[in-house]
Amino acid sequence: MTLEIQNQRIVTPFSLSIHSETGIPDNHDTLIERYLSKLADIYLDSEAAEAMVREKGDILTYQVFEKDIPEVNGELRFCSSIVYPGKVGDEYFMTKGHFHSRRDTAEIYYCIRGEGFMLMETEEGAYALEAFTPGRTVYVPGYYAHRSINTGTEPLVMLPIYPGDAGHDYGTIEHTGFKHLVVESDGKPTVIENPKYTN
Amino acid sequence: MTLEIQNQRIVTPFSLSIHSETGIPDNHDTLIERYLSKLADIYLDSEAAEAMVREKGDILTYQVFEKDIPEVNGELRFCSSIVYPGKVGDEYFMTKGHFHSRRDTAEIYYCIRGEGFMLMETEEGAYALEAFTPGRTVYVPGYYAHRSINTGTEPLVMLPIYPGDAGHDYGTIEHTGFKHLVVESDGKPTVIENPKYTN
Repeated sequence: MTLEIQNQRIVTPFSLSIHSETGIPDNHDTLIERYLSKLADIYLDSEAAEAMVREKGDILTYQVFEKDIPEVNGELRFCSSIVYPGKVGDEYFMTKGHFHSRRDTAEIYYCIRGEGFMLMETEEGAYALEAFTPGRTVYVPGYYAHRSINTGTEPLVMLPIYPGDAGHDYGTIEHTGFKHLVVESDGKPTVIENPKYTN
Repeated sequence: MTLEIQNQRIVTPFSLSIHSETGIPDNHDTLIERYLSKLADIYLDSEAAEAMVREKGDILTYQVFEKDIPEVNGELRFCSSIVYPGKVGDEYFMTKGHFHSRRDTAEIYYCIRGEGFMLMETEEGAYALEAFTPGRTVYVPGYYAHRSINTGTEPLVMLPIYPGDAGHDYGTIEHTGFKHLVVESDGKPTVIENPKYTN
């Protein structure tokens, strides 16, 4: 799929198919798998996460299937992202969330299956939440850290697309946490302030 | 959705929903509608196209619903693109096709409904064809003119996403035509050389 021509990698045309139920593509280069044992810290009740792993064994909370497209300006990178249903205490399974290293780059998420939310926050305190339902396309502007949250009972399957040179900055949000959390309250997804948030 | 801050347009988070059957989004800023009367020249048998319009009245062959996102580097523009089923003689309904003004920019098309092909050609003569089926994601590299073609009996609904500063160059391919055509032969989509192609 990629050719090496005079030290420049050229991507040739290709296509892949994303399964509408499982979200698994028929072709990928890299698979990122996030297990609860490694992610306990992103949840408000980290001890509950650790207890779940001890009692039930480790749990796969999300997967990202990626194609190896050059990380350069002008390119587009895309993946299939699957967040599995579940909760740690009242808090829904979710991704770690990230800023783009190049802050002014946007990202678009198309929801293929499931339901949930995209939580978006800037370093200056702006905040937004957009719902995921099948067919819903969420536009994440530059400067927003973003995290996808599965509030449903089936896998949340998304197609994220972002500029080749966006880059991922996981560290900043890992350090501060998000200012908001999405938890179940009276059986419904509810936004609360994150008591562990540090800025 | 966009704010004007010190002469800089900032896009705030938003989402929209694309109908899985019709492809029509619940929100758009611009609608491009392409009628056969204005597109007769892109078909091999232009006279047949003109005769169809005379006999049946004008025919809407495709629509593009766009959001007004700034055309700058770092942004992503996206739309819902719907090519309706039909033929001019043996040639399937299709888009005009275009290069990006900034040649080194890629584009990704996610197919929501229908079947067809993405025809891709570079100015240097490279050529590729990728199939559209629901869930299929086609990667169009930089430097490739691209045209989507509906070879099925239902609307071909696609979600195209491209860098904000890609730009559209319709003129180059309008002048030369594509080197290849997709026509029906023995009831099946078949690629032939375009006798009208000029380089």
